[in-house]
Order: sequence, then C-alpha cells, then structure tokens
Amino acid sequence: MTTQIGILVVGNEILDGIVLDTNSHWIINQLKALNLHVKEKVTVRDEVPEIAKALRRLIADGCTLVFTTGGLGPTHDDKTLSGVAEAFGLPLELNEEALSIVTRQYRDLHERGVIETAEMTEARRKMAVLPKGAKPLDNRVGGAPGVLLDVEGAQIVCLPGVPGELMWIFDNQLLALLKQRVEGAFAEKIIYLPLRDESTLAPIIDEVMKDVPDVYIKSMVKPYGESGIRLWISARGNSQAKVEERVSRVANLLIQLCEEQLPNG
Amino acid sequence: MTTQIGILVVGNEILDGIVLDTNSHWIINQLKALNLHVKEKVTVRDEVPEIAKALRRLIADGCTLVFTTGGLGPTHDDKTLSGVAEAFGLPLELNEEALSIVTRQYRDLHERGVIETAEMTEARRKMAVLPKGAKPLDNRVGGAPGVLLDVEGAQIVCLPGVPGELMWIFDNQLLALLKQRVEGAFAEKIIYLPLRDESTLAPIIDEVMKDVPDVYIKSMVKPYGESGIRLWISARGNSQAKVEERVSRVANLLIQLCEEQLPNG
Repeated sequence: MTTQIGILVVGNEILDGIVLDTNSHWIINQLKALNLHVKEKVTVRDEVPEIAKALRRLIADGCTLVFTTGGLGPTHDDKTLSGVAEAFGLPLELNEEALSIVTRQYRDLHERGVIETAEMTEARRKMAVLPKGAKPLDNRVGGAPGVLLDVEGAQIVCLPGVPGELMWIFDNQLLALLKQRVEGAFAEKIIYLPLRDESTLAPIIDEVMKDVPDVYIKSMVKPYGESGIRLWISARGNSQAKVEERVSRVANLLIQLCEEQLPNG
Repeated sequence: MTTQIGILVVGNEILDGIVLDTNSHWIINQLKALNLHVKEKVTVRDEVPEIAKALRRLIADGCTLVFTTGGLGPTHDDKTLSGVAEAFGLPLELNEEALSIVTRQYRDLHERGVIETAEMTEARRKMAVLPKGAKPLDNRVGGAPGVLLDVEGAQIVCLPGVPGELMWIFDNQLLALLKQRVEGAFAEKIIYLPLRDESTLAPIIDEVMKDVPDVYIKSMVKPYGESGIRLWISARGNSQAKVEERVSRVANLLIQLCEEQLPNG
C-alpha cells in the first residue's frame, strides 16, 4: 500500500509572515527522490489544541507517516511535543536517551567555548521530555533531538524548525528508515513552451492525457506576466523504465503538437 | 469579533516540490498590514473532494474569511471552483459578469497581438463558470477572474495561483473590502541578540512575558547553525500607541537583561 504522507508545520512566525516556510518544500523534495509523495500539508500556530487537532485529522485522513516541523526547542512557544501527547492521549515523560543527547550537545558546545555553561537547566531538560513511547533522533547541530513515535498504525516524525538541524536529522537519522518505504516508480520532466496563452493549450493537454493515460500534465504560466508556459509532466507506476518512457513520449508529443497547431505561439 | 482567517493553497506542484508556495506568504503579509491575522493554512492536491473537505474544515474551525490560491485557470487540473461548489452544495453555472471579464481579457490580448484569436473557446468559457451566487473579481493581468462568495456566514475569496494575477486582484479588487474588517491594533519588532544559546535565553523570555503581559516573544535561531538569535516581539490590542509602547518596552528590557546576565553571549 502506498504510504500516505502528511506534513504539519508549526509556528506563529509562518502564519504572521515573518518566516517563509521552506522546510516543508525541502522535505517534499527529499521524499520525492525516494518516490514518496505528500498528500496534505497543514500549518498551525503554536497552540497545543491546534497542533493536536491537526495531527488527529491527518491520521483520520489516512496519513501513515506525518512529519512535523518546528516547536521542539527550549522556549515557552515550543509546544509541538505537548500537541503530539495531547493528540494521542500520551503522558509526557523524561526520556533518558534524549537526555543523554541533550547533555552531550551542551557539553560539546561548552567544551568548544560556544556557551558559558554545560549545566542541565530546566529549559534544556525540557527538550528531553517526550511523549511516552517516543524515540529521540540524534541532533548534532542544535540542542533539540528529533522525535519518532509509532502510534495508531502511523509514524510521527517531529523535526526542529531550524533548517540546518532539520536537514541534519533527516539525512543522518531518517534516510535509512525512509528508504524501506520506497515503492513504485516516479518520473517527471519540465518542458518550456514559448506560448502566451494557456487556454489554447488546454485542449491539447486533454488530448494528450487521453492518448497516454496515467500521466499528469500541469501547465504553469510564468509568475509575473512574462510570456512562456512551463509544462510539468509526471507519472507514477511500477516500472521506472515505463514511467520514464511515458513522460518522454508525452513531452515530445506536446512539443510536436504545439509546433503544428500553434504556429505563432 | 475578530475575523478568523484561513488560507487554502491548491496545487500538486506545491506538494510535489516543483513550486515553493510564496503566494500565501505574500497574502499573510498584506493582511498583517491591515491588522488581520491568519489562523490556519492548508495545502491540498488538485482533487475536488480534497478541496471541498479542506474548505468545510476551515469553516467548521470558525474561519469567517478563507482565501484559496491556485486552480482557477482553463486546464483540466484547475478544480478549485468545483471544490467550492461541492463544499457548499452549490451548482456551477455560467456567470455573465465573469464571462464579460474573460471576453474582454482575450479581446485585449488579441488586439495587442499577444494571442492568435479572441474566440470564446470551451477552455476560456470554463473560467466564467462559477458556483451559484458567487461574484467575479476583475483580473487585468490574466484570463481567470477571482471569485468572491458569501456562504454560511463566511466569505470565500478564490485567487489564481499565478503570483502577478493574484497580487493584482488582491490590490485592486479586495483591499477596500478588507479594510472594512480592520480591527484592533498590532505592533511588532524584530531584534537581534548576539547570543549562541537559546536555552539560556528561555528563562529570560519567560520573566519578561510575566512582567509585560499580552506580548508574544518568539526566539528564532539562525537557520544554518550561525551564531546569533533573532527575537520577534509582537502584541495585539485595541490601542496602537499601547501595543507599540509594550513592544518597545519589551525590546529594551530584553536587550538590557541579556547584556547584564549573559556577559559573553
């Protein structure tokens, strides 16, 4: 069965326009390289009930793998793990493995002269308090471990919002796990057509999609009124050779039809 | 009562990482300038049931103003209006005002020599088929009108996904309407602290938030492991002078406390 994937982005800074969310875009592209595709993305504020509700909905929608980004740090507004605990009725408790990761991180930073003290303060200890049953994911960039939780037939992966930390955990702690989920084949190609009118292209796309089934063609008009249209052609299936062949065939067909039928673009 | 705002981003190209969604970030910042704040953002694929479900949920969550972006064009994958119609049990029908906008756009483009024919094709006509009761919003950049629909006590605003078109419609067709909703006061300030450790800052933030209530302080560690922390301080209220005073006071207090308590950062 295909893995249904959801992403939950947590943070007032996103919904108040201080930060542009590039984390989910990065995750999506890493997953795509594994033939894994995201079904839905939700962005909520730093509020426990909002986080919990969004998680429950993603699971109810059939997501069996959910990534959260943001809200794992030491400050008052870092509430993602409380949201996860509330969503699944789990108590929060000190996780010894997480504590040893946090302890090592601050000891290392102290030894390198980056911070003044390696003392285990309340704020630092907070990052080792996880929902019961969760497993920490090592973080060698910052202080907050990632979190992996298997619950109700789904896997929840919580990643910090700081891009460098998120990327490190994803690449070093998750890739092997995600590779086990790789399934099917995916191919895509973007072509550029020197056209000015998407509406004239619409029936040509319909015709090609009828001729070559199981291919998705999306036309993307240039963002700011320039001329030219990009066509994104993608296909999923079981055989890599076959999806690649289909995508190539469609690309050539579209280029040919546009040259024939749209002489002056 | 505060306007609860939701954003629904529609498009496979976002969830497959071809396009980074900057539209919602842009909308959020325009709304912020009107003291309006977004509660939740959802991103779904180009599928009618997904669009309909997401809309119904945003309304059920209390959103009284929902912006959708993407999916208004002439091609097969433009399904937002079908999703809106399904969400609220409305029939889709040709809207004469929308048809006159679409007709004018293609006539103008043809007169300017941009496109080959001004003929009202099926693909072009599709953009004038709106949910019953909806009002088109003029679009002078591209072919697809925006759509405004008052339904179930909420207002749905559908904008195209092409940024230049979305921005034009927002600025020229919506601003006056949105200004009527402006309420309360909002102030914010971002300060930079030359610190390396967010965990040491956490109790200081807690202390300041206790001293100055109704101020939200969010610490943002630099994205890629550089040193330095940005603090985003924001406040909402009724008096602009008061929220600005609170934000300034907190900014000064934080800078002072950090200088006193964290001599070497």
